[in-house]
Amino acid sequence: MALLEDLQWRYATKKYDSTRKVAEENVNKIIEAARLAPTSSGLQQFRVLVISNQELKEKIVPIAFDQQIVADCSHLLVFAAWDKYTEERIDSIFDRTTEERGLPKGRFSSYTDRLKAIYLTQTAEENFAHTARQSYIGFALSIAQAAELKIDATPVEGFNNSALDELLDLGSKGLRSVTLLPIGYRDAENDWLSGMKKVRNPQEEFVIEYR
Amino acid sequence: MALLEDLQWRYATKKYDSTRKVAEENVNKIIEAARLAPTSSGLQQFRVLVISNQELKEKIVPIAFDQQIVADCSHLLVFAAWDKYTEERIDSIFDRTTEERGLPKGRFSSYTDRLKAIYLTQTAEENFAHTARQSYIGFALSIAQAAELKIDATPVEGFNNSALDELLDLGSKGLRSVTLLPIGYRDAENDWLSGMKKVRNPQEEFVIEYR
Repeated sequence: MALLEDLQWRYATKKYDSTRKVAEENVNKIIEAARLAPTSSGLQQFRVLVISNQELKEKIVPIAFDQQIVADCSHLLVFAAWDKYTEERIDSIFDRTTEERGLPKGRFSSYTDRLKAIYLTQTAEENFAHTARQSYIGFALSIAQAAELKIDATPVEGFNNSALDELLDLGSKGLRSVTLLPIGYRDAENDWLSGMKKVRNPQEEFVIEYR
Repeated sequence: MALLEDLQWRYATKKYDSTRKVAEENVNKIIEAARLAPTSSGLQQFRVLVISNQELKEKIVPIAFDQQIVADCSHLLVFAAWDKYTEERIDSIFDRTTEERGLPKGRFSSYTDRLKAIYLTQTAEENFAHTARQSYIGFALSIAQAAELKIDATPVEGFNNSALDELLDLGSKGLRSVTLLPIGYRDAENDWLSGMKKVRNPQEEFVIEYR
């Protein structure tokens, strides 16, 4: 029941104690959960940016519609997905796979040829719609890992993506920002949401069964 | 380290032992993880369909490009997202929230008005691009919960979405399918991927730090 208890414990923290920092070891575990996330064809179409620089966090506050959590958190994680597929990006992880598994290079070439035939004929926007979805898998696992460590985290979609991409020069890295995840420790006394009952649709409305 | 160990343990199972069934109690836990998933504005823009009916699973095999795992698994979960936002859908969870937290009805009306101003002026396709992303958060947490229970699960994006929507009559429920998650127990002897080294880009390539 560990994960379910962790998910009951967590909430979208609205106020952080800016004096408390998350230990590097724990930041690394939160990132590691995202790194281990399954992704479509195992391509790992996203990266995680970790911002602990206070000045930079403060520059992001206005980009995040003045949400102060972005500055008050301990570390700000940015989940950013590939802006498009390229031949090189598709080949890269499969070359690594053949090497690490001791398989002949090109072992997956008929598979990667199929992927290229699909993705390289799509527009960059269509590509990004797909890569961005993958980043949500990592995002969710990082949220779960933070909760396991009793570290607060706030899933954030509301920010000016293109302004953040420009500030962090993500274009030159072939990335576009998708979500933010401030992590840190709640300032429970000053957080209106702290202690509020978690509300979800009940299982009977959430699930449709075909027996 | 529980979650990280679970993520190391799991893999995209390619062959299920069709004689072994997942206990209902555990199926419920896997769904519960998705139900507890955080979603944008807490709207829970997705639902989980649980298919244990063998005949129905077999009908889905050709829709899933002949992937036999869909029939051989114990239960097939389908993650399906709202086809669009509606005023009623947006109000529904906030009405529940005010009720369950003992707040005055309409407490969140300025917030829901803002959500409606954004979403109800978008196209249904734009809406679905957003609701589908939310479903990936639940999808990821269900994968993690299955792994915690040492239940195998295979994340699947590759299927004919509109054919599945038609078969399950999802349109009448205001839903569109996004991903599949067969769950069950691996047939390790007959699974080429079982026991293969998990390959990921190393942390130094996956993470970009701003200190």
